[in-house]
Amino acid sequence: MRIFVDFGLPPEALELLRQGTAGHELLFPRTPAASVLAKSDPDPQFATADIAFGQPDLAAIEASTRLKWIHVSSSGITRYDNSRFRALMAQRQIPVSNSASVFAEACAVHVFSFMLAQARNLPQALKTRAAGGTPAWSGLRAASSTLRGETVLILGYGAIGQRLAELLRPLGVTITGFRRQPRGDEAVPMVAESDLPAALQRTQHVVNILPESDHTRRFFNAARFAQLKPGSVFYNIGRGVTVDQTALAIALRSKHLRAAWLDVTDPEPLPDDHPLWLEPNCFITPHIAGGQGAEYEVLVRHFLDNFKRLVQGQPLADRVM
Amino acid sequence: MRIFVDFGLPPEALELLRQGTAGHELLFPRTPAASVLAKSDPDPQFATADIAFGQPDLAAIEASTRLKWIHVSSSGITRYDNSRFRALMAQRQIPVSNSASVFAEACAVHVFSFMLAQARNLPQALKTRAAGGTPAWSGLRAASSTLRGETVLILGYGAIGQRLAELLRPLGVTITGFRRQPRGDEAVPMVAESDLPAALQRTQHVVNILPESDHTRRFFNAARFAQLKPGSVFYNIGRGVTVDQTALAIALRSKHLRAAWLDVTDPEPLPDDHPLWLEPNCFITPHIAGGQGAEYEVLVRHFLDNFKRLVQGQPLADRVM
Repeated sequence: MRIFVDFGLPPEALELLRQGTAGHELLFPRTPAASVLAKSDPDPQFATADIAFGQPDLAAIEASTRLKWIHVSSSGITRYDNSRFRALMAQRQIPVSNSASVFAEACAVHVFSFMLAQARNLPQALKTRAAGGTPAWSGLRAASSTLRGETVLILGYGAIGQRLAELLRPLGVTITGFRRQPRGDEAVPMVAESDLPAALQRTQHVVNILPESDHTRRFFNAARFAQLKPGSVFYNIGRGVTVDQTALAIALRSKHLRAAWLDVTDPEPLPDDHPLWLEPNCFITPHIAGGQGAEYEVLVRHFLDNFKRLVQGQPLADRVM
Repeated sequence: MRIFVDFGLPPEALELLRQGTAGHELLFPRTPAASVLAKSDPDPQFATADIAFGQPDLAAIEASTRLKWIHVSSSGITRYDNSRFRALMAQRQIPVSNSASVFAEACAVHVFSFMLAQARNLPQALKTRAAGGTPAWSGLRAASSTLRGETVLILGYGAIGQRLAELLRPLGVTITGFRRQPRGDEAVPMVAESDLPAALQRTQHVVNILPESDHTRRFFNAARFAQLKPGSVFYNIGRGVTVDQTALAIALRSKHLRAAWLDVTDPEPLPDDHPLWLEPNCFITPHIAGGQGAEYEVLVRHFLDNFKRLVQGQPLADRVM
């Protein structure tokens, strides 16, 4: 089989991919995509591929007559997640899987690090030189917590949310989740959409992992932020477009929200004159939540595991269409 | 009974203490200690007290003929931890307890927040504005980890270390501990003192919670730092005096150590011209690890629980002498 891989791989991960696909052919575009998240440019070789691994071009997929499987190299599938594309894949019987498992662990640890840094006041504490007993010192200690007894609501509860709940468990927090279509097997209580305003009102830590879709765009708007409990903390490691960032800046400025921790924004990075940069309690990392030193190896191993499943006719892991 | 409390309490905690000691008498010095960690000045009322709650003055303890119990308001008991004082307490049959349980949870969460901030590169990531696919972005992702499979050695393994081990467990790290006198009931494997150099050599995260004593002063000196694995990370939430800070600065400067996260230094704060301030990978919080918003209430509840035990003739919690 001919496998089109549209992003560049470091040597170890490439070697791993070559070994795992021995007997098959790997195709790389002349210009690899900038990252595993980036859309690749159309490449003539794509038309000859049986398998696409990366973020393949929509028109190229449509034009292909050979494609048997698409494995998306990210967790988000916004590019493909519409009814027209789903119908096309269903009609052509092309299964689509993503790399959700690869990124879930790192994403969960990342937002967990946000929550602990917030609980321990690290941004403030790391720049405070104060002797014991001084007001600055007492203030820092009084503003710190262990998270015990605090409430957490995870919106877009899925693989990342479930992992986050596991990491949070030893800290003694109370966790609820929200997803549009609960499966019934979630490890924490689910909130119904109609109960969201009440749930937000009683929650101290709101973790937004909502994917991008027509239902979630600007989900967190001014009205929604007004529903949040005064003094609560907002975290976003889902997609920047799910948040009205002007409304967020206003909610921070008015101190209605205590702080916001964002790994995603819209656009990325935010323009230098964006009001969120001026908010001292807005903490932004540049869309790195899913990253880890071993990322490409973990990504390739996950693809190879699924490749083996495809060849053996077994159900694919992380299948999304 | 007359209870001498040498530090000031916020209203809610004071009310809690008053209610819990109704029928007894609370004595406060004219000048309360600056904090629950600070030594109080001698006060004439002390001589009339049956119970001391705080950091009572050594000479005042020695001069007292009424004292029946000392409850230290911190986890560290350096001020009292010497053979002369222990002999005096034994001879006079004065039990001494501390507030270890109160601070263990917050301390464990604090150093845990350090470890996660390091794993996710937060100090660097929070000041990087980079688009996906850029070298800065790729570098941040590649330098991040989930801690999975990494090694942690906890020195001074006690209540805090045990709690830290519980918090770390879901992350899939390998933990060993060291304490001078293992009890045999530790939840992680203990390293013998003779094996310490080998253990340090294979450990990625060295967590120093050693208390201050004649055995631990400058325990981490240049020779010890040389034993650490290249690229490892050093954390200190024990006592500043257990570290030769010049040796630490040199180990960071040479990049032998990847980073150091310190909540304690010697002195506190470090002088403005101290070389550690110049190390970009040295992260210092001002001795706040044990702090939390509910600190005084948790402290008072712990004292009251022990007070009840004393009155009822039950064994004291956190008894240290």
